[in-house]
Amino acid sequence: MKFFEDIRVGEISELGRHTFTADDIKAFAARFDPQPFHLDEAQAARSHFGALCASGWHTACVWIRLLIHYRRREDEELRGRGEPVAQLGPSPGFRDLEWLRPVHAGDTVSYATEVVEARPLNSRPAWGIIFVRNTGVNQRGEPVISFVSSMFVERRDKGQPA
Amino acid sequence: MKFFEDIRVGEISELGRHTFTADDIKAFAARFDPQPFHLDEAQAARSHFGALCASGWHTACVWIRLLIHYRRREDEELRGRGEPVAQLGPSPGFRDLEWLRPVHAGDTVSYATEVVEARPLNSRPAWGIIFVRNTGVNQRGEPVISFVSSMFVERRDKGQPA
Repeated sequence: MKFFEDIRVGEISELGRHTFTADDIKAFAARFDPQPFHLDEAQAARSHFGALCASGWHTACVWIRLLIHYRRREDEELRGRGEPVAQLGPSPGFRDLEWLRPVHAGDTVSYATEVVEARPLNSRPAWGIIFVRNTGVNQRGEPVISFVSSMFVERRDKGQPA
Repeated sequence: MKFFEDIRVGEISELGRHTFTADDIKAFAARFDPQPFHLDEAQAARSHFGALCASGWHTACVWIRLLIHYRRREDEELRGRGEPVAQLGPSPGFRDLEWLRPVHAGDTVSYATEVVEARPLNSRPAWGIIFVRNTGVNQRGEPVISFVSSMFVERRDKGQPA
Protein backbone atom coordinates (compact mmCIF):
# COMPACT_ATOMS: atom_id res chain seq x y z
CA MET A 1 0.00 0.00 0.00
CA LYS A 2 1.16 3.51 -0.77
CA PHE A 3 1.36 5.95 2.13
CA PHE A 4 -1.56 8.24 2.84
CA GLU A 5 0.37 11.26 1.49
CA ASP A 6 0.79 9.55 -1.91
CA ILE A 7 -2.90 8.82 -2.43
CA ARG A 8 -4.83 11.30 -4.59
CA VAL A 9 -8.57 11.84 -4.76
CA GLY A 10 -9.71 10.82 -8.23
CA GLU A 11 -7.06 8.12 -8.55
CA ILE A 12 -8.47 4.98 -10.21
CA SER A 13 -7.06 1.47 -9.76
CA GLU A 14 -8.07 -1.31 -12.14
CA LEU A 15 -8.16 -4.39 -9.91
CA GLY A 16 -8.68 -7.05 -12.55
CA ARG A 17 -11.57 -9.15 -13.76
CA HIS A 18 -13.31 -12.41 -13.09
CA THR A 19 -15.54 -14.66 -15.22
CA PHE A 20 -18.38 -16.19 -13.23
CA THR A 21 -18.89 -19.75 -14.46
CA ALA A 22 -22.03 -21.73 -13.65
CA ASP A 23 -19.97 -24.06 -11.42
CA ASP A 24 -18.42 -21.13 -9.60
CA ILE A 25 -21.85 -19.51 -9.04
CA LYS A 26 -23.38 -22.74 -7.74
CA ALA A 27 -20.45 -23.59 -5.45
CA PHE A 28 -20.59 -20.22 -3.73
CA ALA A 29 -24.38 -20.37 -3.45
CA ALA A 30 -24.37 -23.89 -2.01
CA ARG A 31 -22.06 -22.69 0.73
CA PHE A 32 -23.50 -19.25 1.53
CA ASP A 33 -26.60 -18.25 -0.42
CA PRO A 34 -28.62 -21.34 -1.31
CA GLN A 35 -31.45 -19.71 -3.25
CA PRO A 36 -32.87 -21.55 -6.28
CA PHE A 37 -31.85 -18.88 -8.84
CA HIS A 38 -28.20 -19.21 -7.73
CA LEU A 39 -28.22 -23.03 -7.73
CA ASP A 40 -30.25 -24.39 -10.59
CA GLU A 41 -30.63 -23.27 -14.22
CA ALA A 42 -34.22 -24.49 -14.61
CA GLN A 43 -35.46 -22.81 -11.43
CA ALA A 44 -33.51 -19.66 -12.28
CA ALA A 45 -35.21 -19.53 -15.69
CA ARG A 46 -38.59 -19.36 -13.93
CA SER A 47 -37.42 -16.68 -11.44
CA HIS A 48 -37.40 -12.89 -11.81
CA PHE A 49 -33.72 -13.19 -12.88
CA GLY A 50 -34.58 -15.29 -15.95
CA ALA A 51 -31.33 -17.29 -15.81
CA LEU A 52 -28.76 -18.58 -13.31
CA CYS A 53 -27.03 -15.67 -11.62
CA ALA A 54 -24.40 -15.15 -8.95
CA SER A 55 -25.19 -14.29 -5.34
CA GLY A 56 -24.60 -10.59 -4.79
CA TRP A 57 -22.28 -11.60 -1.96
CA HIS A 58 -20.27 -13.66 -4.40
CA THR A 59 -19.85 -10.59 -6.63
CA ALA A 60 -18.65 -8.66 -3.56
CA CYS A 61 -16.30 -11.41 -2.33
CA VAL A 62 -14.54 -11.55 -5.71
CA TRP A 63 -13.92 -7.82 -5.34
CA ILE A 64 -12.09 -8.29 -2.03
CA ARG A 65 -9.97 -11.12 -3.51
CA LEU A 66 -8.95 -9.00 -6.49
CA LEU A 67 -8.22 -6.04 -4.21
CA ILE A 68 -5.92 -8.11 -1.97
CA HIS A 69 -4.06 -9.45 -5.02
CA TYR A 70 -3.79 -5.94 -6.44
CA ARG A 71 -2.32 -4.61 -3.19
CA ARG A 72 0.14 -7.47 -3.06
CA ARG A 73 1.39 -6.62 -6.56
CA GLU A 74 1.59 -2.95 -5.59
CA ASP A 75 3.61 -3.78 -2.45
CA GLU A 76 5.98 -5.99 -4.47
CA GLU A 77 6.55 -3.14 -6.92
CA LEU A 78 7.26 -0.72 -4.07
CA ARG A 79 9.71 -3.16 -2.46
CA GLY A 80 11.27 -3.82 -5.88
CA ARG A 81 12.05 -0.10 -6.09
CA GLY A 82 13.41 -0.15 -2.52
CA GLU A 83 10.53 1.98 -1.27
CA PRO A 84 8.79 1.49 2.08
CA VAL A 85 5.31 -0.03 2.18
CA ALA A 86 2.54 1.57 4.23
CA GLN A 87 0.49 -0.34 6.78
CA LEU A 88 -3.24 -0.60 6.29
CA GLY A 89 -5.51 -0.56 9.34
CA PRO A 90 -8.74 -2.51 9.73
CA SER A 91 -11.64 -1.43 7.54
CA PRO A 92 -14.42 0.20 9.55
CA GLY A 93 -16.94 -0.93 6.94
CA PHE A 94 -18.68 0.43 3.89
CA ARG A 95 -21.84 2.09 2.73
CA ASP A 96 -24.35 2.20 -0.08
CA LEU A 97 -23.81 -1.19 -1.63
CA GLU A 98 -25.98 -1.61 -4.71
CA TRP A 99 -26.46 -4.67 -6.86
CA LEU A 100 -27.36 -2.96 -10.11
CA ARG A 101 -27.81 -5.88 -12.47
CA PRO A 102 -27.66 -9.67 -12.16
CA VAL A 103 -24.34 -11.39 -12.96
CA HIS A 104 -25.19 -14.38 -15.13
CA ALA A 105 -23.10 -17.47 -15.84
CA GLY A 106 -20.40 -16.56 -18.35
CA ASP A 107 -20.36 -12.87 -17.45
CA THR A 108 -16.95 -11.27 -16.92
CA VAL A 109 -16.87 -8.51 -14.34
CA SER A 110 -14.08 -5.92 -14.30
CA TYR A 111 -13.49 -4.29 -10.92
CA ALA A 112 -12.07 -0.87 -10.21
CA THR A 113 -11.74 1.50 -7.26
CA GLU A 114 -11.66 5.27 -7.28
CA VAL A 115 -10.47 7.34 -4.33
CA VAL A 116 -13.32 9.74 -3.51
CA GLU A 117 -12.10 11.25 -0.23
CA ALA A 118 -8.86 11.25 1.78
CA ARG A 119 -8.35 13.01 5.08
CA PRO A 120 -5.94 12.86 8.02
CA LEU A 121 -7.35 11.57 11.29
CA ASN A 122 -7.10 14.00 14.17
CA SER A 123 -7.80 11.24 16.65
CA ARG A 124 -5.02 8.97 15.32
CA PRO A 125 -2.32 11.22 13.89
CA ALA A 126 -0.23 8.39 12.43
CA TRP A 127 -3.14 7.44 10.16
CA GLY A 128 -5.37 8.87 7.48
CA ILE A 129 -8.73 7.58 6.28
CA ILE A 130 -9.60 7.10 2.64
CA PHE A 131 -12.96 6.46 1.04
CA VAL A 132 -13.07 4.59 -2.25
CA ARG A 133 -15.94 3.94 -4.65
CA ASN A 134 -15.74 0.32 -5.81
CA THR A 135 -17.43 -0.75 -9.01
CA GLY A 136 -17.86 -3.89 -11.05
CA VAL A 137 -18.79 -3.63 -14.73
CA ASN A 138 -19.75 -6.54 -16.97
CA GLN A 139 -18.42 -7.31 -20.47
CA ARG A 140 -21.13 -5.08 -21.99
CA GLY A 141 -19.94 -2.13 -19.93
CA GLU A 142 -22.97 -2.30 -17.61
CA PRO A 143 -22.38 -1.70 -13.89
CA VAL A 144 -23.36 -4.68 -11.73
CA ILE A 145 -22.13 -3.64 -8.28
CA SER A 146 -21.15 -0.40 -6.59
CA PHE A 147 -20.25 0.51 -3.02
CA VAL A 148 -18.13 2.91 -1.02
CA SER A 149 -15.62 1.48 1.44
CA SER A 150 -13.30 3.18 3.88
CA MET A 151 -9.93 2.18 5.26
CA PHE A 152 -7.21 3.50 7.51
CA VAL A 153 -3.85 4.07 5.79
CA GLU A 154 -0.54 4.81 7.51
CA ARG A 155 0.95 8.30 7.13
CA ARG A 156 4.55 8.56 6.08
CA ASP A 157 5.13 11.51 8.42
CA LYS A 158 3.35 9.66 11.30
CA GLY A 159 1.47 12.88 11.94
CA GLN A 160 4.64 14.76 12.89
CA PRO A 161 5.00 18.20 11.33
CA ALA A 162 7.77 18.27 8.69
CA MET B 1 -41.71 -15.24 3.51
CA LYS B 2 -44.69 -13.53 5.09
CA PHE B 3 -46.63 -11.07 2.94
CA PHE B 4 -45.82 -7.39 3.15
CA GLU B 5 -49.05 -6.69 5.06
CA ASP B 6 -48.03 -9.12 7.83
CA ILE B 7 -44.62 -7.55 8.48
CA ARG B 8 -44.45 -5.10 11.40
CA VAL B 9 -41.82 -2.45 12.06
CA GLY B 10 -39.95 -3.44 15.23
CA GLU B 11 -40.36 -7.17 14.55
CA ILE B 12 -37.16 -9.06 15.44
CA SER B 13 -36.16 -12.42 13.94
CA GLU B 14 -33.44 -14.51 15.57
CA LEU B 15 -31.69 -16.13 12.62
CA GLY B 16 -29.40 -18.51 14.50
CA ARG B 17 -25.74 -18.62 15.36
CA HIS B 18 -22.43 -19.80 14.01
CA THR B 19 -19.11 -20.67 15.66
CA PHE B 20 -16.12 -19.52 13.60
CA THR B 21 -13.42 -22.18 13.89
CA ALA B 22 -9.83 -21.51 12.86
CA ASP B 23 -10.22 -23.92 9.91
CA ASP B 24 -13.41 -22.20 8.80
CA ILE B 25 -11.76 -18.75 9.01
CA LYS B 26 -8.69 -19.86 7.05
CA ALA B 27 -10.70 -21.69 4.35
CA PHE B 28 -12.81 -18.61 3.62
CA ALA B 29 -9.77 -16.32 3.67
CA ALA B 30 -7.76 -18.57 1.35
CA ARG B 31 -10.57 -18.36 -1.17
CA PHE B 32 -11.62 -14.70 -0.89
CA ASP B 33 -9.62 -12.58 1.55
CA PRO B 34 -6.04 -13.88 1.76
CA GLN B 35 -4.65 -11.46 4.32
CA PRO B 36 -2.12 -12.77 6.88
CA PHE B 37 -4.32 -12.10 9.94
CA HIS B 38 -7.09 -14.27 8.45
CA LEU B 39 -4.73 -17.10 7.42
CA ASP B 40 -2.02 -17.65 10.00
CA GLU B 41 -2.07 -17.55 13.82
CA ALA B 42 1.53 -16.37 14.22
CA GLN B 43 1.19 -13.52 11.73
CA ALA B 44 -2.20 -12.58 13.19
CA ALA B 45 -0.63 -12.36 16.67
CA ARG B 46 1.73 -9.69 15.34
CA SER B 47 -1.04 -7.75 13.55
CA HIS B 48 -3.35 -5.04 14.91
CA PHE B 49 -5.94 -7.78 15.52
CA GLY B 50 -3.69 -9.65 17.98
CA ALA B 51 -5.05 -13.09 17.01
CA LEU B 52 -6.50 -14.95 14.03
CA CYS B 53 -9.82 -13.39 13.01
CA ALA B 54 -12.44 -13.91 10.34
CA SER B 55 -12.69 -11.83 7.19
CA GLY B 56 -15.47 -9.29 7.60
CA TRP B 57 -16.92 -10.69 4.39
CA HIS B 58 -17.03 -14.12 5.98
CA THR B 59 -19.03 -12.70 8.91
CA ALA B 60 -21.43 -11.17 6.37
CA CYS B 61 -21.71 -14.32 4.23
CA VAL B 62 -22.68 -16.41 7.27
CA TRP B 63 -25.50 -13.92 7.85
CA ILE B 64 -26.96 -14.51 4.38
CA ARG B 65 -26.74 -18.29 4.85
CA LEU B 66 -28.57 -18.16 8.18
CA LEU B 67 -31.16 -15.79 6.71
CA ILE B 68 -31.91 -18.13 3.79
CA HIS B 69 -32.26 -21.09 6.19
CA TYR B 70 -34.49 -19.02 8.46
CA ARG B 71 -36.77 -18.07 5.58
CA ARG B 72 -36.97 -21.67 4.45
CA ARG B 73 -38.12 -22.74 7.91
CA GLU B 74 -40.63 -19.88 7.94
CA ASP B 75 -42.00 -20.90 4.52
CA GLU B 76 -42.31 -24.53 5.66
CA GLU B 77 -44.28 -23.42 8.71
CA LEU B 78 -46.59 -21.29 6.57
CA ARG B 79 -47.19 -24.16 4.15
CA GLY B 80 -47.66 -26.52 7.10
CA ARG B 81 -50.54 -24.30 8.22
CA GLY B 82 -51.91 -24.22 4.68
CA GLU B 83 -51.08 -20.53 4.29
CA PRO B 84 -49.72 -18.93 1.11
CA VAL B 85 -46.07 -17.92 0.94
CA ALA B 86 -45.06 -14.48 -0.35
CA GLN B 87 -42.53 -13.95 -3.12
CA LEU B 88 -39.40 -12.00 -2.37
CA GLY B 89 -37.93 -9.75 -5.04
CA PRO B 90 -34.25 -9.09 -5.65
CA SER B 91 -32.41 -7.11 -2.97
CA PRO B 92 -31.45 -3.66 -4.22
CA GLY B 93 -28.52 -3.64 -1.79
CA PHE B 94 -27.68 -2.39 1.67
CA ARG B 95 -26.12 0.47 3.52
CA ASP B 96 -23.98 1.34 6.49
CA LEU B 97 -22.16 -1.94 7.00
CA GLU B 98 -19.92 -1.73 10.05
CA TRP B 99 -17.46 -4.31 11.35
CA LEU B 100 -17.49 -3.35 14.99
CA ARG B 101 -15.11 -5.88 16.52
CA PRO B 102 -12.95 -8.70 15.19
CA VAL B 103 -14.41 -12.22 15.18
CA HIS B 104 -11.71 -14.52 16.54
CA ALA B 105 -11.39 -18.29 16.21
CA GLY B 106 -13.83 -19.94 18.62
CA ASP B 107 -16.21 -16.97 18.73
CA THR B 108 -19.91 -17.73 18.33
CA VAL B 109 -21.91 -15.04 16.58
CA SER B 110 -25.70 -14.83 16.97
CA TYR B 111 -27.47 -13.06 14.12
CA ALA B 112 -30.77 -11.19 14.22
CA THR B 113 -32.74 -8.85 11.99
CA GLU B 114 -35.14 -6.12 13.02
CA VAL B 115 -37.61 -4.51 10.63
CA VAL B 116 -36.93 -0.77 10.75
CA GLU B 117 -39.11 0.48 7.91
CA ALA B 118 -41.84 -0.97 5.67
CA ARG B 119 -43.64 0.90 2.93
CA PRO B 120 -45.70 0.11 -0.15
CA LEU B 121 -44.11 0.89 -3.51
CA ASN B 122 -46.07 3.33 -5.65
CA SER B 123 -44.04 2.38 -8.70
CA ARG B 124 -44.72 -1.37 -8.29
CA PRO B 125 -48.09 -1.73 -6.59
CA ALA B 126 -47.86 -5.51 -6.13
CA TRP B 127 -44.78 -5.04 -3.92
CA GLY B 128 -43.63 -3.35 -0.76
CA ILE B 129 -40.12 -2.58 0.35
CA ILE B 130 -38.80 -3.37 3.81
CA PHE B 131 -35.62 -2.19 5.48
CA VAL B 132 -34.08 -4.40 8.15
CA ARG B 133 -31.21 -3.76 10.54
CA ASN B 134 -29.02 -6.88 10.65
CA THR B 135 -26.75 -7.51 13.59
CA GLY B 136 -24.28 -10.13 14.75
CA VAL B 137 -23.36 -10.35 18.44
CA ASN B 138 -20.62 -12.53 19.92
CA GLN B 139 -20.86 -14.84 22.94
CA ARG B 140 -19.97 -11.94 25.25
CA GLY B 141 -22.90 -9.89 23.94
CA GLU B 142 -20.63 -7.55 21.95
CA PRO B 143 -21.82 -6.47 18.49
CA VAL B 144 -19.42 -7.51 15.71
CA ILE B 145 -21.34 -6.58 12.55
CA SER B 146 -24.26 -4.31 11.72
CA PHE B 147 -25.86 -3.23 8.47
CA VAL B 148 -29.20 -2.21 6.99
CA SER B 149 -30.52 -4.15 4.02
CA SER B 150 -33.60 -3.67 1.91
CA MET B 151 -35.77 -6.09 0.01
CA PHE B 152 -38.92 -6.19 -2.05
CA VAL B 153 -41.75 -8.28 -0.57
CA GLU B 154 -44.95 -9.31 -2.33
CA ARG B 155 -48.23 -7.73 -1.18
CA ARG B 156 -51.12 -10.02 -0.46
CA ASP B 157 -53.59 -7.55 -1.94
CA LYS B 158 -51.33 -7.05 -5.03
CA GLY B 159 -51.89 -3.31 -4.62
CA GLN B 160 -55.62 -3.61 -5.29
CA PRO B 161 -57.83 -1.68 -2.88
CA ALA B 162 -59.79 -4.04 -0.60
